[in-house]
Amino acid sequence: MTFVLDKQIERDSVFVQDLKLCTVRLSKNAAFPWLVLIPKRPNMAEILDLNEEDRQVLYSEIEHCARALQKLFKPTKLNIANIGNVVSQLHIHVIARFKTDPAWPNPVWNSGVMKEYSEAELDARLASLRTTLAQVLQSK
Amino acid sequence: MTFVLDKQIERDSVFVQDLKLCTVRLSKNAAFPWLVLIPKRPNMAEILDLNEEDRQVLYSEIEHCARALQKLFKPTKLNIANIGNVVSQLHIHVIARFKTDPAWPNPVWNSGVMKEYSEAELDARLASLRTTLAQVLQSK
Repeated sequence: MTFVLDKQIERDSVFVQDLKLCTVRLSKNAAFPWLVLIPKRPNMAEILDLNEEDRQVLYSEIEHCARALQKLFKPTKLNIANIGNVVSQLHIHVIARFKTDPAWPNPVWNSGVMKEYSEAELDARLASLRTTLAQVLQSK
Repeated sequence: MTFVLDKQIERDSVFVQDLKLCTVRLSKNAAFPWLVLIPKRPNMAEILDLNEEDRQVLYSEIEHCARALQKLFKPTKLNIANIGNVVSQLHIHVIARFKTDPAWPNPVWNSGVMKEYSEAELDARLASLRTTLAQVLQSK
């Protein structure tokens, strides 16, 4: 069986980069630097559904993304979460949060805060994320 | 420097069990089977603040707690998250969520849903959690 990205995740985010296990996407919500990691394995809902080897890779890829957001944005706090109550396909949020962001200190989900990227902003953000992810991966 | 549990976490939860790295506590919010893991290391806010060895132990202890909640409650979905925007001491939520719970499908944080355990309910829940955590740890 092949991995197919969930339609709602596809609609709400844009492709950043493929890692060994996960495809990394950026939420279209410009209010927060917000990455979503989706393990490219079919029929997974829980982290525990992955085999042990994949789980180790997942943790390491979450750390790569978290380090990239730290390096780029110097956030007040990282928010890292697997929720998946609405979209069941396994996906992990890695979000840079700031004391100054419009939902702080509440979680971003259901915060009602939504901002669109302009095309130029989105291109710039994707470019900086790709560069920084590559730097973080090389420095490991 | 010694680890001291954050006062708000202490107030909002009760002790379940000490693992190698984390102290495991149960949220006093009886609306959800809700564990909180706090690594017993001083001055940690991010998972990335832990050294690599501790991070590996943390992931494994999160998995133990997640398996225990799965075994005990057969939830619709596990929610696993490090948020920490309000309480900065590093802590990880592992929560059993159900299609029938009063906040579903929203996240539990800021859901406004709060229910108290009776003393008997709390004792029973702590006992079953301790038994099941021990079973899960033994079966590894």
